[in-house]
Formats: sequence, C-alpha cells, structure tokens
Amino acid sequence: MFQCHARIPRDRGVVVKAQGVGERRIAACAPKSFKIITGSICAPLGFKAAAVFCGIKRRKLDLALIASDVRAAVAGLFTTNQVCAAPVRLSAQRVLKRFAQAIVANSGNANACTGPQGIRDAKRMAEAAASALNLKASHVLVCSTGRIGVPMPMENVQRGIRACAPLLARSATNARQAAEAVMTTDTRRKEIAVEFEIGKAMVRIGGICKGAGMIQPWMATMLAFITTDIAIEPNLLKRALRIAVAQSFNRITVDGNMSTNDSVIMLANGLARNSKFEIRDSQFQDALNFVCLELAKMIVRDGEGVSRFVTVNIHGARSAGEAEAAARTIANSALVKTSWCGGDPNWGRILCALGYSKAKVNESCVDVGYAKPGSREILFAFRRGRPTDVDLKTLGKISAAREFDLHVNLHLGPANFTIYASDLTEDYVAFNRRYESDPASTRRLRWKN
Amino acid sequence: MFQCHARIPRDRGVVVKAQGVGERRIAACAPKSFKIITGSICAPLGFKAAAVFCGIKRRKLDLALIASDVRAAVAGLFTTNQVCAAPVRLSAQRVLKRFAQAIVANSGNANACTGPQGIRDAKRMAEAAASALNLKASHVLVCSTGRIGVPMPMENVQRGIRACAPLLARSATNARQAAEAVMTTDTRRKEIAVEFEIGKAMVRIGGICKGAGMIQPWMATMLAFITTDIAIEPNLLKRALRIAVAQSFNRITVDGNMSTNDSVIMLANGLARNSKFEIRDSQFQDALNFVCLELAKMIVRDGEGVSRFVTVNIHGARSAGEAEAAARTIANSALVKTSWCGGDPNWGRILCALGYSKAKVNESCVDVGYAKPGSREILFAFRRGRPTDVDLKTLGKISAAREFDLHVNLHLGPANFTIYASDLTEDYVAFNRRYESDPASTRRLRWKN
Repeated sequence: MFQCHARIPRDRGVVVKAQGVGERRIAACAPKSFKIITGSICAPLGFKAAAVFCGIKRRKLDLALIASDVRAAVAGLFTTNQVCAAPVRLSAQRVLKRFAQAIVANSGNANACTGPQGIRDAKRMAEAAASALNLKASHVLVCSTGRIGVPMPMENVQRGIRACAPLLARSATNARQAAEAVMTTDTRRKEIAVEFEIGKAMVRIGGICKGAGMIQPWMATMLAFITTDIAIEPNLLKRALRIAVAQSFNRITVDGNMSTNDSVIMLANGLARNSKFEIRDSQFQDALNFVCLELAKMIVRDGEGVSRFVTVNIHGARSAGEAEAAARTIANSALVKTSWCGGDPNWGRILCALGYSKAKVNESCVDVGYAKPGSREILFAFRRGRPTDVDLKTLGKISAAREFDLHVNLHLGPANFTIYASDLTEDYVAFNRRYESDPASTRRLRWKN
Repeated sequence: MFQCHARIPRDRGVVVKAQGVGERRIAACAPKSFKIITGSICAPLGFKAAAVFCGIKRRKLDLALIASDVRAAVAGLFTTNQVCAAPVRLSAQRVLKRFAQAIVANSGNANACTGPQGIRDAKRMAEAAASALNLKASHVLVCSTGRIGVPMPMENVQRGIRACAPLLARSATNARQAAEAVMTTDTRRKEIAVEFEIGKAMVRIGGICKGAGMIQPWMATMLAFITTDIAIEPNLLKRALRIAVAQSFNRITVDGNMSTNDSVIMLANGLARNSKFEIRDSQFQDALNFVCLELAKMIVRDGEGVSRFVTVNIHGARSAGEAEAAARTIANSALVKTSWCGGDPNWGRILCALGYSKAKVNESCVDVGYAKPGSREILFAFRRGRPTDVDLKTLGKISAAREFDLHVNLHLGPANFTIYASDLTEDYVAFNRRYESDPASTRRLRWKN
C-alpha cells in the first residue's frame, strides 16, 4: 500500500484516485502539477515486481525482482566509497550501456569486501535472473544490502530467483513486497508514485527505497529503485536523475557514514508513449525531484533510533561548497545530534560545529534561528554574533518537536544549502553495538575466505 | 595526589620517590630516562597553585590560579575553531609576548559566543589576578571552560580571584585542587609530573589537564597547563610544545568535535638553572612528549560515557596527510565507534570508513588486524582484500577488552599515523542530550544579551 510519511507538515490528507484500489486518503505532499497515486514501482505501465524469502535473512522476504515488459532506458548513481560492493561495480558498468530491463536485489548480505568471489557471485545473480526472465544477462542489474564480508549463499539466491520469476506481476501488493524485501534495519516500507500529463500522455513515476543507517556490515545501506513509463533518451534520464539525487539522496544524513552499497537505479520503458520532445519541460524534473526527495526523507525519518527530523538550512555562505560544508558539519556533529535528541535548543553546539567546518565563518555576523517545519517565522537565539533575549520556553517548544527547521545565516555571501538530518539517540548506539542486529532476520553466516 | 591511569598495559607498578610524600607505588609508564614524580604542576621549582569555589558552578571548585615566582617563558597552542572563546583570543595574543607569570582559569562558563562583553570580561579576569598577585596584567593568561553563550558572572569571578591569591602554595594538594577546579564533565583528575637531569641540573615538568568531550556549551572542553623549571628560550619552548602537542593532544578523539576553548599553555621559569645550551638535547623533548601524551590519553580514557580505549594505527599510506585522514575517519565514524562499544570486531565498518576517507585506498591491498595494547602479535581479520579465516572467538576476545590496538595497513606507501580514540556509548548520548548535564555542578544561568 502507498505510504507517505504522516509527519510531513503539509500533510492535510487529500482524496486521490488510487490505482486499482479506488479512492484513498493520503498525504498531500505533492505540488498540484502532479498527483500521488498508489502502486509505487508497479504504477508505471509495463513494470512488474515480485519478492520471495530464500534464506539469506532468517525469516523475512529477502529477494526481489523488478522487471519491465520492454527494454528500458536506464540511469544509475552509486556510492563513491572506494571500498564498494561487487554488485555496485557490476551495475555501475551495466548502466553505462544505457538500456536495461530488470533488477535483482537482495537484503541480508551486502556482497561487499568479498574479493573476486563477490564479483563472480554478482554476475551469477544477474545470469540467474536473466535466465529465469528470458533476458540478456547484461540487461539485468544487481543490488545487494546487508552484512559486509560474508560470501553470498549462492544456492539460496539462485533458488530464490527461480521461485521469484513466476510471481512477477503489476500490482500494488507485489510492489509493496519488493519494498519489503530490500528492508534491513528499516522499520517501515518506503514507496511512492506520482502521475502527471506530458502533452496528451498520462505518465507515471514510481519508487521504492530502503535505508536506515548509511551503512552497516550486516544491516542497512541505501538502495532506491525508480521506475517510469515515460519515453525518454537515456542521456536525458541520467541528467534528470543526477539533478534529483543531488537534491535528495545526497542531502540526507543519519550517521554520516557513506555505504559500500548505495545505489539509485532508474528505469524508463517509454510505454506512456509521450512525445520525447515534450519531456524537456520542467514538469518531469519536478515530479522526479519530488519522488526522490520524499523517498530520501523517509529514509531519515526511519533512521536507526531516530527521534527527530531536522531540516538544516544554511544561508549566506560565500560559495555553494562552503554552504554545504557548514550544513554537513552541523548535521554530522555528535554533540549537535545528541542535543537534538534531548529536544534542546543548543545553539552553542551549532556555532561550535560551524566554527570548525570548512566554511568561512565570522562569528560577529552569524544568526542562528529555529522554526516550525516549513514555517517562515524564525525565532533567533543568536543574532549578529550575540545571544538574543529569546524566550527560552518558546524556543524549547520548537526544538522539542519531532520535526523542526534550523536556519543559520553566515551573512558572508549568496550561497545556500539544505540538508535533512536526524538526531543521535541511545537507541542508535544500542542498536549498532550489537554483534548481530536482528537475529530474527539475519542468518548466522560464518566468515570464510 | 599523583594519578596515572591504571589500565596502561605497561603498568607493573614501580617504586619511585614521591615528592614530599615519601615512596609510593605508581604506574611505570615512563621511559627510564626520566622518573615520574608527584606534585604535578607544583613539582617544578617556583610554581604555586590554588583553587576556590566562587559560584560559577553550583558547588564544586571552579576557579584556579597557577603562578610562577619569577617571570617565565611561555608557549601556547589554541583551538583553530573560527568560533573561539574570548579567553582564547586574549591568551593567544599574550603568548606572543613570549613571557608570562600566571594563569587564571575557571570552569562552569566558557565565555564563548558572548560578543564584545566576553573580551572585556576576559581582560577583567586577567586584571583582577594581576592585581591580587602584584603582576603586570599582560603577564596573566586566562582560560575558561563550561557553558557557551552565557556571560561570565564577573562579581563572583573577581571575588574568587581575590580569595584564591592568598592560598597560593607549592604543594601537591594545591596542584590537585587546581586540577579539580578546571574539571567539568571529567570524572577523574588528570595530573602528571616527571623529573630528569639536564647536564648537572635536575629539572621537572608537571602538567594538569581537563577534557571529556571535545566541547560542550556548558561542559567540557580541553585545557592543559604545563609547568617546568627548565631554563629555555621562549622560541625553543614553543617549538618543543608544538612537537609534543602534535603527537598527543592533536591525536585524540572522543566525539570528533573541536572546541571553542581548547588551550595548551606551558610556562618555563628557569629556576632549575640548567645550561640553556644543553636543553637542545632530545631528553627534554622526550619528557615533554611523554607528559603530553599521558595527559592526552587520560582525556580519552575519561571521555564522556567512554567504555573502550582504542589505539588506531594506520600503516602504509601514500602520505602523512592520507594516513591521518584514514585514522581520523575511522576513529570518528559513529558506526565504528558503536561497534567498539559492543566489543565487536567489526572490520567491515572499518573498511567502509576507510573507503570514504580522503586517503587513497585499494581494497585488494588492505590489511585489518587487531592486537592487545602494545602487542606486536596482530590477528588479521582481513588481509590483502579478503576476509581471513581468523578464529572469531579469539578476535572477539581482543576487541571486547577495554583497550586494544587496531592495525590497518594500506600497503600503498611509507606513511603512518596513530590516533587514540574512544567508543560511542549510550551513556555519551544520555549524558549530552540532557539540557543541563550536571545540575549539582552547573549554576542555572539565564541567557541574556
């Protein structure tokens, strides 16, 4: 079923036509130029999905297939971690060929730091999926997420792929199961779909993603799969995806750790039969930006142990790079994050983090303010280098809410940057200190060479 | 009383002559060329200390004076945070004058982000101390630690300085009280002193420091005061301190946050009457390195909520900068730190952090190994890009200890780097999420402009 985070401030609940399920009250977080629909990755025409449990995890769904009826333009963006997983290496090569038709994804094992055997296993996964779906192996992309350093249990994986292929169908239930099958430490499914008109054609974009910590050896990394029936050239698709990811998945942080497996893959199969010329208008980009940003925010809100969602807005930096550096340093400071956890408007820690960021800071110019999510009413705690006589109760009320906006103005230039961040909680530590995070869902695999 | 951390691996307990207290069994963590003695900052000839409670904190000692009988060469190193506290600005200027005679330090209030009033208050603190000690104000350095953004309660401070001055004495008790008066979230005093011969003169170096988190608005920052009776030119002193700090205070991390108030100040009053020529030999540098490193390690071991002390050794990086980047990225990764907290030999997280560090990494060359503190027996979990078939039980035993060494070899060049790090625990979060960390020791001060 479609799931849009209920805590989005603009969430008023509007009635939209839900595909195949009738009318449904869901969050109105989409601009008016497009409509939120159900079905996520199966909403676009010609996309099917399925998921099975094949024994990579202990119990839960752990293998998913996503396939298009026809060959689709493909774009992908991957982790820039120098230590990246075998499926990332394989898929990054294959998206360069511009067309693909299916994705096979598993959770429970990241196939990372597994040496040459890992590459062989990733290829074998693609081959098994290609053979079950009657496709060319080079048209199948592979994604894995879960424990690092453990060889893939290939017998289980191959059996799973064979069992999964006949289940492929275009249904909201199947899309939901695929979203579940890539979950690791996630507590919630993350799916979305929108539809809008391009010229006279109705087109759709659907997406699922997973992610809770940015990386764990036997837990979460970030994966996102986006499907669309738009007819679009692969080059344009790649450009649009790059823009959308820069404003969404690349602007979130839970714990500041960059995964070995992060991947965002998008397939566009052209079945909406829109004119390719018209795709150049901004509506497609707007819709894609929205889909990616909503998915990205779902990741932060479902971050490991997360109890606060904070939008950190930097204004007035000298350059875009400095604005980004300031935002990331604040959003990744352990002390800032723990103060958020305590609902504490601790602007001293924010100033301190700002001061050791790579951004130029002149203390006597800085403003630090707090606002309700999306509100333009900013309550300043520090202005032009001095503490204000702000009412601490009101300030504390804003920062004690589950979501709030932080506004920092450096007053040194024209550049801005926004990052979506979470707090750091005892639960995060308790969760990640454990040797095996979720005994119910992770198979005990021995380390072997 | 002298305190050396009991968990140092070389701690066998040797009998040394303790100044004024007779023989005492303490840790043998010093090389043989110099001897650990008691008395910390009062061990060197001509140095006096005193501390009082004057109402900056709620109850505990909160103001300390350290003074030399004669004018001393001075060297100081300060935070590079662009947002730095008023006393840091003042003291950094004053150490440029090469000579000083006293330090006034307080805890409970950092005098940071306090605007022009903060600078005025720091100057008034120095003036009050100078007047009470009959010195030139420019010969008094000022250090503060505690809450950010709160004006100094100057009446209390000035009264405290007047009360403190008559108590100045050269005794181990007074040195201990001074070490206590700069504590914020520290749970243990941090002091040390050594003595050794230069030519025919017996000389001494003593030090105290405080620090538990690298910064908190109303809690810890790192301060260190080092005294010596060695006769030395200010330029040589500065050079020696710079070398010692680079290998100690600049190689520790608790939470990766750089304070607004970090300061290391050293006074050398020359009363040991050694030949200045002889000071150029390496013994002085060795002793100073030792003093600084032991103090720095005490900070990590007493870090907020810390339950593990890990020495991270990077070998085989292409350059010193890359070795440092790799070490810092590993030591500051929230996921690596939480795995240490769980006593988990989670080498996958280490590889992942390595991969997103600024250091060049070739996964197929990397070794990751664990060892008991100081031991040369390294147990490798990952070698040349592949998981080994290490015995997990033995590996788990090493990493579950309170202290262990991590060895990462990149096999790409000649550069090495070592950093002393702590884990990240639930206690750290619980501690720092609270609005007021220690109601018993921090006065409730209102935010005012």
